Amino acid sequence: MHKKRLAELAASLKSADIKAAAILPSAALHYLTGMSLSCSERPLLFVVLDGGELLAVCPFFEATRVAREAPHATIFTYSDEQGAGQSFAALAAKVGPLKNIAMEYQAARLLEYLLLKEHCGVESLADLRPLLAEQRMLKEPQEINKMQQAARLADLAMGFVEENLCPGLSELSLLAKAEEFIKSKGGHLAFISIIGGERTALPHATTSARILMTGDVVVVDLGCQVEGYYSDITRTFLLGQASEKMLEVGKIVLAANTLAREAIFPGVSASFIDQVAREYITKAGYGEFFTHRTGHGLGLEIHEEPYIVMGNQYLLAAGNTFTVEPGIYLDGIGGVRIEDDICVTATGAISLTTYPRALKVVTKFAQPPSKGEAPCRP
Amino acid sequence: MHKKRLAELAASLKSADIKAAAILPSAALHYLTGMSLSCSERPLLFVVLDGGELLAVCPFFEATRVAREAPHATIFTYSDEQGAGQSFAALAAKVGPLKNIAMEYQAARLLEYLLLKEHCGVESLADLRPLLAEQRMLKEPQEINKMQQAARLADLAMGFVEENLCPGLSELSLLAKAEEFIKSKGGHLAFISIIGGERTALPHATTSARILMTGDVVVVDLGCQVEGYYSDITRTFLLGQASEKMLEVGKIVLAANTLAREAIFPGVSASFIDQVAREYITKAGYGEFFTHRTGHGLGLEIHEEPYIVMGNQYLLAAGNTFTVEPGIYLDGIGGVRIEDDICVTATGAISLTTYPRALKVVTKFAQPPSKGEAPCRP
Repeated sequence: MHKKRLAELAASLKSADIKAAAILPSAALHYLTGMSLSCSERPLLFVVLDGGELLAVCPFFEATRVAREAPHATIFTYSDEQGAGQSFAALAAKVGPLKNIAMEYQAARLLEYLLLKEHCGVESLADLRPLLAEQRMLKEPQEINKMQQAARLADLAMGFVEENLCPGLSELSLLAKAEEFIKSKGGHLAFISIIGGERTALPHATTSARILMTGDVVVVDLGCQVEGYYSDITRTFLLGQASEKMLEVGKIVLAANTLAREAIFPGVSASFIDQVAREYITKAGYGEFFTHRTGHGLGLEIHEEPYIVMGNQYLLAAGNTFTVEPGIYLDGIGGVRIEDDICVTATGAISLTTYPRALKVVTKFAQPPSKGEAPCRP
Repeated sequence: MHKKRLAELAASLKSADIKAAAILPSAALHYLTGMSLSCSERPLLFVVLDGGELLAVCPFFEATRVAREAPHATIFTYSDEQGAGQSFAALAAKVGPLKNIAMEYQAARLLEYLLLKEHCGVESLADLRPLLAEQRMLKEPQEINKMQQAARLADLAMGFVEENLCPGLSELSLLAKAEEFIKSKGGHLAFISIIGGERTALPHATTSARILMTGDVVVVDLGCQVEGYYSDITRTFLLGQASEKMLEVGKIVLAANTLAREAIFPGVSASFIDQVAREYITKAGYGEFFTHRTGHGLGLEIHEEPYIVMGNQYLLAAGNTFTVEPGIYLDGIGGVRIEDDICVTATGAISLTTYPRALKVVTKFAQPPSKGEAPCRP
């Protein structure tokens, strides 16, 4: 599998007339070699030549691991005392100058880029991201299988959160419960945010110590991970009592989510899916409050290609996996977002996440608040 | 506090004749503004001018949060449809071209660098890291206080792991127990690895599903986090029975750790501390198996300046915080590492971590293995 992926990348490099790809620890590296490494202050870099050869520069004490997990790689090591420069030079001495290379602009650091420039004769740079995206966007069956498992876990976690929503509980303590629950199921909760009240108007707010109150709108955004592959789901709840405004907004967001999902077919552009969701929300009078794109690709990264955004003329194809997540955010009041994970099939699309989507007024609480009355929104 | 730090940075920029520092979400940004942000595919960048002004480029939907947490910043936003380029151009239009800037080579991405180059007239680049390190290496009292709290939690977690070491238990299940324990104490375990058997010969091996066995050498490396500040401790245990070889190696590593810690005074070089540990291990005949530097700075990052490495002529000063962690790694047999967190004082140094250091043969087990005999090393 990794051999095939490396060969495909080498072919892409060749046809783009690029000598090599230089890859830091990243989802791309995981995709190409299966290795899960992380960046540190010590440079660690893999190089894929346009002929398909794999080379690596790494600290001496990491060499055993790299050799085990990437047995075909030619490894250049350095000690803390020597520093990395001489390994980069040794690599260039072996394979010749790397005049034009590709690096992922959003993953590559200046540290490694400047070392390559100084020691390996790099003169020009291209973005590796679009070169690899072509491959990575078309998920193989075993990748989709892992994403389905991750989505199933996310549905399960969402169910747990709904069952445990309760006025009087803090956002953070509910988050901790959900983490424990998923762990007890043998799953891995990759991220979760539980936001109640007017902070739901901030699409990227983080869970706080705030106590959930009757009347709150609660936005729950979470994802699980299975063997490197992510899910990403958002549902919105109303705690204890309905708010007419939020119910109205919730219906609009649900319709936008549904229409966008139903518009997905192979051959349709990513931009069009965004347009479907955005036009519906705009006609309903909330266009200016839908402040982000309709979705993002999903896989080894939580955000990856294809982006479901106005202007992206990429034509969807079977094997694409991405989110559809329209939202409306009213400053000082609250927000609603409904997010699903979609897999494009030969004849349309399926949603990997299946948890009920409609905004729900939760009125049955698992545990009553510990002291006195449940707190209410003023 | 943040105002003072920004002013100090501005002064450093001015004296280095650098127009601005461009800072991505990172420990440096946290240090300068208190903001904890993370990188995504959407560029998000702060700029500190040599006059001390703070500016930010961020996605439109993050602007509310940035404005709340960095109220003095001038913010330039962009939507997903527009893309970030025009915000970089707007920033340059406001403050003039940023001909020479500093970025942290090990944190800055090509993505933002290339946008700055294209839209802000960047011509030359310097590494921000050493400019900021001067400030960041000298911890303020409230920073040391947080590090002490983090170290106390790490001691506590190490105690829990020792008490729960048991043949028959998997490394991963012991790790999960330790995480739960620290969480139940209200603490945050930032990282932990529990490695048993011959994989301890890999300094950066990760916890696996391997079952701990009688006769194992077990290396436990963990750190906690308190308000952004880290601790980092390693202890080595022998499970159930002594190995003469490992006991011998353990004594050498302990002596190296002790001698190095006792050599720390203001005015002594970082290189000298490495030399003290390395010479002792080398004289004992294991020099080639001590494959990494003696330590690294610790604070808002797990690895930061000052690095305790041969050749680093930085003279230690009161307020420096770093690890001392000599180790010996014998391929196919196992490894020993003993790591403490040090704070340099006016008259010497204190160890923030205090858990007993000597290699210990653990013979009392909290729980007997569930089935039959405890597994033994062959």
